[in-house]
Amino acid sequence: MTPDRLDHIFSALADPTRRAILARLALGTTSVTELAQPFDISGPAITKHLKVLERAGLVIRGREAQWRPCSLNAGPLKEATDWLERYRQFWEGSFDRLAEYLKEVQTNGEQDG
Amino acid sequence: MTPDRLDHIFSALADPTRRAILARLALGTTSVTELAQPFDISGPAITKHLKVLERAGLVIRGREAQWRPCSLNAGPLKEATDWLERYRQFWEGSFDRLAEYLKEVQTNGEQDG
Repeated sequence: MTPDRLDHIFSALADPTRRAILARLALGTTSVTELAQPFDISGPAITKHLKVLERAGLVIRGREAQWRPCSLNAGPLKEATDWLERYRQFWEGSFDRLAEYLKEVQTNGEQDG
Repeated sequence: MTPDRLDHIFSALADPTRRAILARLALGTTSVTELAQPFDISGPAITKHLKVLERAGLVIRGREAQWRPCSLNAGPLKEATDWLERYRQFWEGSFDRLAEYLKEVQTNGEQDG
């Protein structure tokens, strides 16, 4: 995977409207008009967000119908997760240390009581 | 978690230099000078990248020493992964479908041969 590809994916995810669009598409394929309904933003703004999502490969627009249905393509989300997974040991490590600390505090508390 | 927080995290990850900084910090705490060495960019540019990473909570700068050591803070990477995990069924679903298709193609090929 080129670094560029991860740039596009993470960049596409860095916006609440775009994440909401993905959440909507997770429920099923829909039209741009339907997609725009819950958002208080203009048609052109939705189109712009869709272009960012398409560039990242997260949304696929059908060509078979005049309304060009939008669908979720989850593959790039797996790529992002694969990159993040390399760091799992670090966050699990810190939670382990927190758990150890809390256990220690609790044990000391019991000894004191 | 506020949407804002995920915006900062994903935005911080959408740059190859910032991802490389995190990879370097995964090896251990270091100074900004050492951190800048492998990159062909200016000191101010590194400082700017560090500010974006700090805002996302991914990098913590020590205050105990004059050289203000930089450390990785992996917690926000877990938050990003938690968000992505909601979509796991979608990418696993598509890979399952691909695996089924490939199996089918292979089986048909064997029958033909």
